[in-house]
Order: sequence, then C-alpha cells, then structure tokens
Amino acid sequence: MNKLLIVGTVAFDAIETPFGKTDKILGGAATYIGISASFFNVQSAIVSVVGDDFPQEYLDLLTDRKIDISGIEVVKGGKTFFWSGLYHNDLNSRDTLITELNVLADFQPKVPQDYKNAEIVMLGNLHPLVQSSVLDQMETKPKLVVLDTMNFWMDCALPELLAIIKRVDVITINDEEARQLSGEYSLVKAAAKIHKMGPKYVVIKKGEHGALLFHGEEIFFAPALPLEEVFDPTGAGDTFAGGFSGFITQSENVSFDNMKNAIIHGSNLASFSVEKFGTERMLDLDKEEVVSRLKQFKSLTQFEIEL
Amino acid sequence: MNKLLIVGTVAFDAIETPFGKTDKILGGAATYIGISASFFNVQSAIVSVVGDDFPQEYLDLLTDRKIDISGIEVVKGGKTFFWSGLYHNDLNSRDTLITELNVLADFQPKVPQDYKNAEIVMLGNLHPLVQSSVLDQMETKPKLVVLDTMNFWMDCALPELLAIIKRVDVITINDEEARQLSGEYSLVKAAAKIHKMGPKYVVIKKGEHGALLFHGEEIFFAPALPLEEVFDPTGAGDTFAGGFSGFITQSENVSFDNMKNAIIHGSNLASFSVEKFGTERMLDLDKEEVVSRLKQFKSLTQFEIEL
Repeated sequence: MNKLLIVGTVAFDAIETPFGKTDKILGGAATYIGISASFFNVQSAIVSVVGDDFPQEYLDLLTDRKIDISGIEVVKGGKTFFWSGLYHNDLNSRDTLITELNVLADFQPKVPQDYKNAEIVMLGNLHPLVQSSVLDQMETKPKLVVLDTMNFWMDCALPELLAIIKRVDVITINDEEARQLSGEYSLVKAAAKIHKMGPKYVVIKKGEHGALLFHGEEIFFAPALPLEEVFDPTGAGDTFAGGFSGFITQSENVSFDNMKNAIIHGSNLASFSVEKFGTERMLDLDKEEVVSRLKQFKSLTQFEIEL
Repeated sequence: MNKLLIVGTVAFDAIETPFGKTDKILGGAATYIGISASFFNVQSAIVSVVGDDFPQEYLDLLTDRKIDISGIEVVKGGKTFFWSGLYHNDLNSRDTLITELNVLADFQPKVPQDYKNAEIVMLGNLHPLVQSSVLDQMETKPKLVVLDTMNFWMDCALPELLAIIKRVDVITINDEEARQLSGEYSLVKAAAKIHKMGPKYVVIKKGEHGALLFHGEEIFFAPALPLEEVFDPTGAGDTFAGGFSGFITQSENVSFDNMKNAIIHGSNLASFSVEKFGTERMLDLDKEEVVSRLKQFKSLTQFEIEL
C-alpha cells in the first residue's frame, strides 16, 4: 500500500450559512483532506498541530479512519487554530469573521519517520514555509507533490510561496487565486504562466463550475455535480484535494490520463462534502454512495460523437 | 434532407468590447442561428423582417449559405432593427446602449409555404407573440420545437412568454434567466420548475461555464472550451442554438442521447463565434476546423473510470 503524507491545519470552525449556524466544530484543511483520502486504499498520516483544548474524540475520529496521527503535535496549554466564516446568500462568497492562529503561529512540522519515504505528499493550505519544511524532511523523492494554497499567502508571503510552488508537481488553486497569482484574466493564460513558475500540472478549481486540469497544451475539465442545494461549502476544496491525492496514491499512477480520473474522484467526494455542515456528510458517507454518484458523473459528461 | 425553420431578428449591431469597437455590422439572432446551422446538412429558412436600409450583400451572404430567405420581409422605407452594446472588462456583463426596434415593432411573421411542414422549428429570441404566430402557421406538427428567449420578455410580456413556453419541447435560456423565470437559485430546482411549465428539455446556458441539459431526472453537462481570449460574446447563445438545432435536424433524432451530441456541437460552434467581432469568425470557418475542435471537446471531458 502506498503512503500519502498530508500536511495542513486541524482546527475548530464556526460556520454560518443561509441555512443555519454551528458552534465550534471539527475543521481544518488536513482534516478534510485526510477524511476524503480515507475512501481509498492508502496508508496516510497527517502532520499538524493542535492545542490541548482539542477533544480526544476528534483525534479518535481520524484514527478510526486509519489515519496516522503521530505527526499531530498537541501543545500543552495551547489553543487550537480557530476560524469562523459567514457565507452570503449565493454561497459563492464569504466573510472571514474570526481567525485565531493560536498554536499555528509557531508551528514547526515534524514528519513521522515512517512517512519520510511517502510516495505522495499533499501540502494542504498553510504558511509556505511550513509546506517547505515538510518537503525538506523527506528522505526519498516523492513520486508526486501536490500543493494547495490561497490568496492570503499571495498577499503576505509571496516570495516564500513562489519558492515552494517551484518545488511541486501539481498546484490546486481557485480561479480568482489563479488570476491573482498570474496577473492574467484568461484561465488558459493564467495556467500557462503558473506552469512557468514550476508545476507541470495546474488544477484550477471553479467551485460550482467545476475544475480544470492543465498540463502544457492539454486540458481536462471536470464539472461539479449540479446539486439541488449546497448547504455548506466549507472544506469542499480540501475534500477535492484529498480525493485527488488519495486516488493517485492508491493507483500508483501519476500520468495525465490518470489525473483526469483523480480529478473526477475529487469532484465526486466534494459534491458530498457540501451537503451538510462541516465534516458531517463525509463521516456518514459509505462507499456504495460514492460509486453510485461516480456513475452520475459519467452520465453527466460522456457523449458519443463519432469523429 | 430535413427542414429547419428559424425565426428571429436579422439586424444591425454596434459592439464595443475591451478589444475594440465596430460600426453597424451584421447581427441578429436568426442571422447567427442560420449561419451556425448551415454547418450541417439541412434545408433551412429564416422568417424575419428588415428595412430597405439592409444591404443586399448581407442577404446574399445568407443565400450563399443555402438559407432560404423568402421569409425575410423587406419593409419599404423601413429601418432595420438596431442594437448597440458595451461589454465590461470581464466580458461576462454588458450594457445595452441603444435598442431601436424600427420595423420589428409591427412585425407579422409569414412562414414560407415550403416550410409549414418543417421537421424542426427554432424560435429565436423575439416577442413571444411572434414566436407563437410562427407555430400557429405550421401545417404539420414539428418533431421538435426549440425556444430561445431572454429576461426582457419575462419583464414585459410574461403571460405571452408562459403561453409559448407551454408549447415547446426545448427551452434554452441562461442561468440568470432560469433563476428569474423559476424563482429558484439552484439550477436543478429551476430546471424542475421550468419542466412543469411545459418543455420536456431545459437547456441552461452558463456562458464560459458551459451548458446544462435537463430531462426529468437526467442531466448532461457540456463545458465551454477554455479559450485564451474571448473577443466578442455577441451571438454566442444564438450560435449555440443554431448548432444544437442544426445538428438535431441533420440527424433526424430527438432522443436525449442525441441531444447530448447536439449540445456539444452547439458549444463547439459557439467557441469559434466569440473569437472575432460579430459573425466574422463564423463566416471564415471551415469544416476541418470544426471537426478538429470537436476532438478537443472530446479530450476535454472524456475519462475512463471503471465502475
């Protein structure tokens, strides 16, 4: 079984959408990535940090999904990272209400010895220096390094971000972030510029409008599944990244054609994630539902024009 | 060869985009639909009206593409419909600067006798009463009636619009219009409500984000081809409708599976239309380019997950 190393936040979220609001619930990029990747046949570990206010039951929940949590540092007397956000009526935009970095402010990631030879590394959204530090600790060159990031780091840590972007094979960012990073409005031009920054593969996430995978001149497009109702978009991008990296890890195949499948798997899992608050839907999701919806993805996009 | 009857405007447009501006050039929904449908093996006719200020060369251009223009009335002393629009920087929104209805104000459509038994009827965007009048004149029931419309008629002629919607098989509208017509934000819910208004097939156009085809519980999605540059979106929706109805007419097959192909053909042709101002790109487009880009559509969306 191949190994997937995940770095990212493990956190508390408080979310308000037009459909309701939550107290502090389980959140964080690495949490969503780990849960999503656990739908594949992989060995995975999370590198992260929490305070001792973080409930044991949340950690157990990750362990129950066979995720190695020995790389999650628990800081005595520390408080866990907390994010609170309010989604607008169309759910396409949100305001951040609270960001308390807490233990994340001084986070020094430590990769478990067993995972220093992981085949696939998924660098979830975090400070670029933390992402770099994880790569520095690898003892064998991973087959594939995937990076997720966001506009926040473009605003306040661009040189460090560009340095880590140079070292990865795949970058996943959303459309607005791709435009900001490249200075190009056209996503085709944006992807071309980002290729030149390092990554051979550029994934641009367009939320309800799907995702594009660019590899040189080649383009693949995965739609988002049209849903009756999107309940809470929190973690959709991370769930996508978890499905993408989890499938790649399981299949031991980093070709462009296999990445197409990985993008579909990621989109498929993300379509469940948004159906309930936080991680709730992912935690009660079974594999039959996953396969059944994959069939919907297939019928949604496949056509028979003879050429 | 099957017959396609097209009703819609034949007009002058003046367009300004971030890339430049035009004087009065050839435009109108029926013009774009007709040119687009002419890429298929069909007999087609346009029902419309122009003033005697409309250049013979523009009419010749339609005739050269084997479009029957006997249903285009030329009003002596009348002035042709004129629309002028200004596109914003992202090309996703525009302001209408001028709308001069002119001869369109009193238009009474007359379907040529030869086309009163047309297999397919494409009702381009026009007053719903004009669209109804065309259907009233048919002597045999068409195999398929496709309706395109816009928010303008929802605002000022809703009862008449609902009456014609009830009579058609396929409606094509954009996402914002689908939301306005149905009162639902979710496009899945919007399509379900529009189904209940009459059409068995609902096509929701999302511009650069592609198009959705709904048929009861079944959904098909066609992406827009990611382009380096969109030059002028004018007529893209009509070109899409022309490709859709043209392909259906040629293939004599109104099944859901064949409509998938029709949507891809429509999206493919629309991807050319936006590359130059007005009808310019469509008029110098050859069939080899069309087939080559269809292959791009296929590689853009086709994947191989075994289920």
